[in-house]
Amino acid sequence: MVQVKDLHWKKDMRVSELVNSYENVGFQSVELYRASEVIVKMKKDSAQVFLTFTSNMVTSGLRGFFAQLIELGIADVLVTTVGGLEEDIMKATGEVFSIGNFNTDDVELHERGINRVGNLLIQNQSYMNFEDMITDILRKLYAKQNRWSVSEMLREIGLLLDDQNSILYQAAKNNVPVFCPAITDGAFGFHLFLFQQENPDFIVDVVKDFGNILLTTSYDDRKGVIALGGSISKHHAILATLLNGGAEYAVYMTTAHRTSGSMSGANTSEAKSWGKVKDESDIATVIGDVSITFPMAMTRALDELYEEGLLNIENK
Amino acid sequence: MVQVKDLHWKKDMRVSELVNSYENVGFQSVELYRASEVIVKMKKDSAQVFLTFTSNMVTSGLRGFFAQLIELGIADVLVTTVGGLEEDIMKATGEVFSIGNFNTDDVELHERGINRVGNLLIQNQSYMNFEDMITDILRKLYAKQNRWSVSEMLREIGLLLDDQNSILYQAAKNNVPVFCPAITDGAFGFHLFLFQQENPDFIVDVVKDFGNILLTTSYDDRKGVIALGGSISKHHAILATLLNGGAEYAVYMTTAHRTSGSMSGANTSEAKSWGKVKDESDIATVIGDVSITFPMAMTRALDELYEEGLLNIENK
Amino acid sequence: MVQVKDLHWKKDMRVSELVNSYENVGFQSVELYRASEVIVKMKKDSAQVFLTFTSNMVTSGLRGFFAQLIELGIADVLVTTVGGLEEDIMKATGEVFSIGNFNTDDVELHERGINRVGNLLIQNQSYMNFEDMITDILRKLYAKQNRWSVSEMLREIGLLLDDQNSILYQAAKNNVPVFCPAITDGAFGFHLFLFQQENPDFIVDVVKDFGNILLTTSYDDRKGVIALGGSISKHHAILATLLNGGAEYAVYMTTAHRTSGSMSGANTSEAKSWGKVKDESDIATVIGDVSITFPMAMTRALDELYEEGLLNIENK
Amino acid sequence: MVQVKDLHWKKDMRVSELVNSYENVGFQSVELYRASEVIVKMKKDSAQVFLTFTSNMVTSGLRGFFAQLIELGIADVLVTTVGGLEEDIMKATGEVFSIGNFNTDDVELHERGINRVGNLLIQNQSYMNFEDMITDILRKLYAKQNRWSVSEMLREIGLLLDDQNSILYQAAKNNVPVFCPAITDGAFGFHLFLFQQENPDFIVDVVKDFGNILLTTSYDDRKGVIALGGSISKHHAILATLLNGGAEYAVYMTTAHRTSGSMSGANTSEAKSWGKVKDESDIATVIGDVSITFPMAMTRALDELYEEGLLNIENK
Repeated sequence: MVQVKDLHWKKDMRVSELVNSYENVGFQSVELYRASEVIVKMKKDSAQVFLTFTSNMVTSGLRGFFAQLIELGIADVLVTTVGGLEEDIMKATGEVFSIGNFNTDDVELHERGINRVGNLLIQNQSYMNFEDMITDILRKLYAKQNRWSVSEMLREIGLLLDDQNSILYQAAKNNVPVFCPAITDGAFGFHLFLFQQENPDFIVDVVKDFGNILLTTSYDDRKGVIALGGSISKHHAILATLLNGGAEYAVYMTTAHRTSGSMSGANTSEAKSWGKVKDESDIATVIGDVSITFPMAMTRALDELYEEGLLNIENK
Repeated sequence: MVQVKDLHWKKDMRVSELVNSYENVGFQSVELYRASEVIVKMKKDSAQVFLTFTSNMVTSGLRGFFAQLIELGIADVLVTTVGGLEEDIMKATGEVFSIGNFNTDDVELHERGINRVGNLLIQNQSYMNFEDMITDILRKLYAKQNRWSVSEMLREIGLLLDDQNSILYQAAKNNVPVFCPAITDGAFGFHLFLFQQENPDFIVDVVKDFGNILLTTSYDDRKGVIALGGSISKHHAILATLLNGGAEYAVYMTTAHRTSGSMSGANTSEAKSWGKVKDESDIATVIGDVSITFPMAMTRALDELYEEGLLNIENK
Repeated sequence: MVQVKDLHWKKDMRVSELVNSYENVGFQSVELYRASEVIVKMKKDSAQVFLTFTSNMVTSGLRGFFAQLIELGIADVLVTTVGGLEEDIMKATGEVFSIGNFNTDDVELHERGINRVGNLLIQNQSYMNFEDMITDILRKLYAKQNRWSVSEMLREIGLLLDDQNSILYQAAKNNVPVFCPAITDGAFGFHLFLFQQENPDFIVDVVKDFGNILLTTSYDDRKGVIALGGSISKHHAILATLLNGGAEYAVYMTTAHRTSGSMSGANTSEAKSWGKVKDESDIATVIGDVSITFPMAMTRALDELYEEGLLNIENK
Repeated sequence: MVQVKDLHWKKDMRVSELVNSYENVGFQSVELYRASEVIVKMKKDSAQVFLTFTSNMVTSGLRGFFAQLIELGIADVLVTTVGGLEEDIMKATGEVFSIGNFNTDDVELHERGINRVGNLLIQNQSYMNFEDMITDILRKLYAKQNRWSVSEMLREIGLLLDDQNSILYQAAKNNVPVFCPAITDGAFGFHLFLFQQENPDFIVDVVKDFGNILLTTSYDDRKGVIALGGSISKHHAILATLLNGGAEYAVYMTTAHRTSGSMSGANTSEAKSWGKVKDESDIATVIGDVSITFPMAMTRALDELYEEGLLNIENK
């Protein structure tokens, strides 16, 4: 049985050391350590990893971290929402977001042409610049073909970008498909609509894309889900693995609780009902803000996977 | 200035009386009272009302309540996720769900062929019955045309049902469009995929449907949003109203908090930044489980709207 | 097995009807119904009921509701924190609190001499009036004896008040002891300190009072705990019942979750480990704001206890 | 204005580096960085630091971390609850706690003589060993004098221990007073009661101790509060500083939200109303599990304070 042990600071402690000590601290710190362990296990076991996150995480500085994880070969399939993808493109084309405050005068911000996402701030101008660009991109896509599945469209967009920190760029470059089951739920959707008004035979084929996500893995693949936040991204990855027999590994990090019965708050104990999870050490649920918990758990996992030679780094 | 007043029980108190007394109690009870007031205001002002909810709410007994609200003329536009719509259809065709417990042995449930959604239980057989039916429905739709927007497809399905308690039935009957921006994110998506495999020209046109939701209201309409829970349903309704200039009224009921920066936790103070909310009395955010808070706030609102003759009841 | 049933509004619905329908809705509404049932059960079984609440609830309009519950014979023992007792006294002597907003300019409020507790506002003057009065009360107590246990002191204060809506007044009048394990943690503590400076032999005997709470019940009594919010009040009641063998019935209503390992978030499943809870129907945990959930659950319980003739009402 | 910047992993990253990068990530990670900064600021400004924590944190491995912080000279005053102090003594006398699971069969644990605190497990035997010891300690204290303030009693107990990882030991050795406003709310209270039964003139003087905490600082001292979790410990520290004019610096780390109006969820924006906080950079509220967030924020602060020569380390 794992014992509770007193935590100690020492000078210049590494993140991995601190997360290791969390194994013996208690409450959510134990779960964070376990999450890190499960991620290492799923990679060592060559599981196909579904990484999901919500738009606001891409608004934050986690965006470049997700791009790096793709580059390092951590994720095989991405699922997210369209707002984040729009912001990934904005950032890839030079837009800069800034840090604000949760308590703000929203009317004043509005007058200054600033949008607020929690404690992050986005200039209206950034959205306008995005809109100027997107029609041109759609025109290029349409010139190639008139019917696109979402992930194929996103891959094309990724190939047009040139930013190491971009999720879409790294995903395209590393052949990691990006699924976005509600592609119209953002400014992008509005521009798709305007474009279709002019080109009625332009079709975004979401049905085909559901086939695409199903075909990313088979029943025989080992599968892992890392779901950050809740919402449709989490549900879609769970659904896609479930239709292929369920995942062997699952890490959920969220601020939502199981008590409301929502998907966002569903914890990994459900994963046991899929019949493929072997034991408790293959699943972990960490309650807390992903902007804190995920970089910690992942940093330790990356340090360990690096030692094992399991990261996609050229001249190691 | 509103005073804090001592709450008192009296025999056989009506819900409206209790909610009225909440105006003077404090904390979230005040917000619940305010939410009820904002709903009354938006209806009196003839605002177009967007009602959004998450799938798990349709799993629960709120499903029949939503259907009733459509029948009574409360909602003009619905936005939700596909899992709930599947369950609405299951219930309309006789499937029965039951009440369980948050603390359960999920492995054992799995062996008994039962799925758990929080403290609600669904038999696997219910999904199978749904699947038996859905292909036949798709065949009928395809016989009419090969390209469907989501809301038009859902309307057709609603017309095939015969259950006063069904959301899709009441929506179809009362010409209330149901939007579902991620239509493939459920068993329904899997069957759409299988059907398209056989009929490659079968298309679900989500882009057209984004146009449809935009056209439900105009810039000049007064608009109100009642968002229950978070997720993409909430975001989609806010987006659709925002592209038409923003809503004048907003009620958010959720268990999520603003501190994670997620859409689910975004509160109505943001609505002030849309520039159309006139004052604090037009918005309310209630933190709490919607299964408790919404029926309370709505019951008082309905009682009042009934008195005003603003409910869609034939022989009042 | 309890089925999920569609909820319906009808005109002038009573609170009891709505809570009854919650049995079949799902998520926290089910728990709220169960809580109501457990309260009825503990009263029918003549259990000794420990009611605990936090100070902010007394700031709110729940204060008069608690007083009424004492008058109706619902609670046999109270445990709370001193801030609420100070405010009960303030209100009993005419101070009026008002409803504000969670989002406020606290610096401006400070300049206007107003204190904020969530969305409730208290004038500094109210505290000053309290302070003017309290020294006089201490002088009277000291004239009787120099060593007081907390509950005996609070009883004396209650006898000096004249307000049907006062917790201390009703508790004193109905011989319900009020325990406050951290009596110095408020303005009252400061005045006790000043008084002791002048009268060094003045003693507040908290050790004796722990004996007093132990002696309110015996091992053989059936016991029930209704804990509203968390903190030391909840813990103290659980401890006092546990030292007498544990409670047979427990209802916890709180916004805290079990995931942090705190007492505030501990749920009633722990109560099963006391060995006296007979089955699941004797315990309930409701996650949500007590200002909403408690009046609902309690109103239904009171309606039912009234019918059973179990309320302390003279000319029923 | 601070910009959002993409986070990157690099091999063997130090905790301080990760926390530094959090300044540019967003949501709670920004708040965690700010908390770390405020702690550094309060120490550089020679503020008197009140550190408060709840019992469950002492159950966890944070206990040795708190002891270390006292040794390093971070905290000048401690406020906590009695359960944690009991467990500090248990651990100091060799008892070992272990890591369990939030989902457990509590009835089975009970039969095995194990108590659960979230996901931590304590043997009943550990409590029994504590009880065997405590009466002997009380006898020694009583032999010296019959009337004790709480902090003086806790100091005497600390002097009897011999464990570098003990909070009470380090506090006693470093002249850091430990305040515990509800000293009877635990097994310790029960033994105080039994002891007083035999020795009626034995008195625990909580009123005097309130004077003691007031006298730890003066109006002219700069003061800082680091409140971990909520409850009475947090409130007591805020009260004690407020009666001396308010603190200049405040860091709150908690899982509770402001929306319930509880002390546990009150955020540091209130601190601005004390009139002494100079600007936003002197306060921070971090929402999240303290077992994760506090070691992170504190590790970076300690690294920086070490560089500045502000830690109490002999042969630096």
